[in-house]
Amino acid sequence: MKITSLNNPKVKEWSHLLEKKYRDTTNLFLIEGDHLFNEAMKKNLVVEIISDDTSFNIPGIPFYEVTKEILKKLSRQKSGTNLIAVVKKLDNSKITGNICLLDNIQDPGNLGGIIRSAHAFNIKTIIMSENTVDLYNDKVIRSSEGMIFHLNFLKTNLSEIIVKLKKEGYHIYGTDVTKGTNLKSISFSQYSGIIIGNEGKGMSPDLIPLCDEMINIPLNKSCESLNASIAASIIFYKMTENA
Amino acid sequence: MKITSLNNPKVKEWSHLLEKKYRDTTNLFLIEGDHLFNEAMKKNLVVEIISDDTSFNIPGIPFYEVTKEILKKLSRQKSGTNLIAVVKKLDNSKITGNICLLDNIQDPGNLGGIIRSAHAFNIKTIIMSENTVDLYNDKVIRSSEGMIFHLNFLKTNLSEIIVKLKKEGYHIYGTDVTKGTNLKSISFSQYSGIIIGNEGKGMSPDLIPLCDEMINIPLNKSCESLNASIAASIIFYKMTENA
Repeated sequence: MKITSLNNPKVKEWSHLLEKKYRDTTNLFLIEGDHLFNEAMKKNLVVEIISDDTSFNIPGIPFYEVTKEILKKLSRQKSGTNLIAVVKKLDNSKITGNICLLDNIQDPGNLGGIIRSAHAFNIKTIIMSENTVDLYNDKVIRSSEGMIFHLNFLKTNLSEIIVKLKKEGYHIYGTDVTKGTNLKSISFSQYSGIIIGNEGKGMSPDLIPLCDEMINIPLNKSCESLNASIAASIIFYKMTENA
Repeated sequence: MKITSLNNPKVKEWSHLLEKKYRDTTNLFLIEGDHLFNEAMKKNLVVEIISDDTSFNIPGIPFYEVTKEILKKLSRQKSGTNLIAVVKKLDNSKITGNICLLDNIQDPGNLGGIIRSAHAFNIKTIIMSENTVDLYNDKVIRSSEGMIFHLNFLKTNLSEIIVKLKKEGYHIYGTDVTKGTNLKSISFSQYSGIIIGNEGKGMSPDLIPLCDEMINIPLNKSCESLNASIAASIIFYKMTENA
């Protein structure tokens, strides 16, 4: 039966998933649109389908027909959507392959962009500091273009995990806008971990002594820095080039 | 005298500059915050200063003390600002150095990011198709981090300008997510023009035959494409590396 009331308990339940605290307690989040839906389906993560179009009613997954008004309430996109899904959070906390470590990345668009480029350039794991923006923020998911479903993610204390990674043979590269070895001259290790720092402040100073090497991308002198997701992507690209 | 009314004619005049059509007719636009203000000052482009803090009253430039409420009305940032300036549009339509040509870029964050990276990697000129997002959109200016004041900009028909550029000795590189020469193998010409296409559709098919060479950045097969500003930045970076 079609849900038509904004006060329906299911609608309230879904609305709660727009907030981090409910995503944290339920281990669920919302996605919008065909592209993300298809990526989530491939990974068997879709729990419920919400749409005004019954052609999205797929056997084996609870389908809720709703009004356009309800879709609008649940959507975070200006142009709206005709398809929303409740999706299980990823359970990919293993550490494999090359790693990107994010130290206090705050902009959801940057986190999404880093995820998209990471997958494009074969980074397998993203480790985030505790103060990094929520992975399940709608803007992170949207700007990742569905690539969020292809990587391993961990949220933990960076200093502690770096010490562990080094013991396991990882070579840890820090990044700095002025100091370090020119990216052009870096020969990446077979097991590399790249640290990308906060948008305004860069890497925490206490992580610097833990790095095996600092990387620098030379820039025009009147340009202070690159966007964090762009700096990360250039380094990821160079890792594939030198591989 | 402090302006306190939202209905003050100056406030209305400034509000109009939030819309493209008024920016187009007046050749003025608004910027927010210290960083952009300093960049605009360096280029002598500031026409009026608007603030609730009289320490921004600089000799020789009309200063308007206003209420926080007025600043909030004029600001496009959630957190607000204490400094807004009316700034003259750039008059930099010459073509020098390496060029980036933008074919129908729609996302203001992407245009701003491309401008920031372009300056970082010594691209001197950005040529935009007529349907590219407005250069003076507040989000473009903000995400350019003030680098907008360092480049030459032209908005014109791309097919026509490409023919001209080639006659002047420019080598024109198109970009494609699947076709073309691996970026790793490209030796950039001394005068290069790089075309970056629309976020969803890529480059217009009618521009492809005009290119001297197509560039491809190899990606993981399950990743459709990179973000447009990231793809552009990786190519700009490689141009500096091969220079």
